Amino acid sequence: MRIYGEPVSRLIDELSRLPGIGGKSAQRLAFYIIHLSEERAEALAGAIVSAKRNVKYCGVCCALTDSDPCNICANTKREPKIIMVVEDPRDMAAYERTGEFHGMYHVLHGAISPMHGVSANDLTIAALLKRLQTTSVEEVIVATNPNVEGEATALYIAKILKPSGIKVTRIAHGVPVGGDLEFVDEVTLSRALEGRREI
Amino acid sequence: MRIYGEPVSRLIDELSRLPGIGGKSAQRLAFYIIHLSEERAEALAGAIVSAKRNVKYCGVCCALTDSDPCNICANTKREPKIIMVVEDPRDMAAYERTGEFHGMYHVLHGAISPMHGVSANDLTIAALLKRLQTTSVEEVIVATNPNVEGEATALYIAKILKPSGIKVTRIAHGVPVGGDLEFVDEVTLSRALEGRREI
Repeated sequence: MRIYGEPVSRLIDELSRLPGIGGKSAQRLAFYIIHLSEERAEALAGAIVSAKRNVKYCGVCCALTDSDPCNICANTKREPKIIMVVEDPRDMAAYERTGEFHGMYHVLHGAISPMHGVSANDLTIAALLKRLQTTSVEEVIVATNPNVEGEATALYIAKILKPSGIKVTRIAHGVPVGGDLEFVDEVTLSRALEGRREI
Repeated sequence: MRIYGEPVSRLIDELSRLPGIGGKSAQRLAFYIIHLSEERAEALAGAIVSAKRNVKYCGVCCALTDSDPCNICANTKREPKIIMVVEDPRDMAAYERTGEFHGMYHVLHGAISPMHGVSANDLTIAALLKRLQTTSVEEVIVATNPNVEGEATALYIAKILKPSGIKVTRIAHGVPVGGDLEFVDEVTLSRALEGRREI
């Protein structure tokens, strides 16, 4: 790629290391960046450095934030007796977008996966237990992903919280709204049948 | 997106302005960047600013370069009597990757397109004419894209170079190697028939 000269080649190289960006996309992005105004290019570069430097974890829920505690933990209008446990800050953002959940969150930053060498100690489960000891919580909703790792993590959390007497629930499995039954896998169909409700 | 705090939201916002990167991809990239080492994040930001600041156009072929003239124009081993005219530096890079072309290039930075308000004056055609007057060139190969704009640009260049007596050629149209005839469009099939050669 010496064809473009060193600065462009270096930019293409840096961009192609990003996930989901291959050689061709990196090239297209690099050319787009070169044709930006200097101000816009610097804004992009500045945002990268600033996000890396200024982001910290909320001391309460372990979400990514620039203020500690985060906006959600600091919000006194939310219900502190219900905690939703999620794997990732993006899952938390997804539930926030629904506008249907008004409790607190706890971000695990992963799921138990012996295959990938992730054990319960690598997650923020200890912080969750400490949090449950110091605050009065009635329900822990486990909203980990509906896959093997997420299910294992949900079962693990349910098991360790059993002695505390706190209610542990799991979000429902079933057919996605707007989906087509024909294309839904067998496991989901069985789960949807199991979880049927009277209408 | 205030859920993530200002630095992350700003990064997601900046990334989602890039072409081909939607909200979800921008979020995924932002989280990837946050989990990079500070050194790597700064290398990415630095590459963006450096590419924007240090890239210039070659005074001879108008390609993007950090040295003027560019590596190809400065290479005395290349054939200066043959110039390939391309729309974009990426097209030049594509031909360089074939390793089959040993002449010089001329980058137009676009194609004539009245629909998008691009006329011959917006391209580097004047620089090409000047270059042809000052150097001895035997052949100009027009390798603009095989679409309406590219064809119009090729015809325009052929027309204005006619008085000079320089041979103007166009790269061949035909079925792509490795393609399947069934999926090739009718125009390409007709062109492939027209351009048939004895074997």
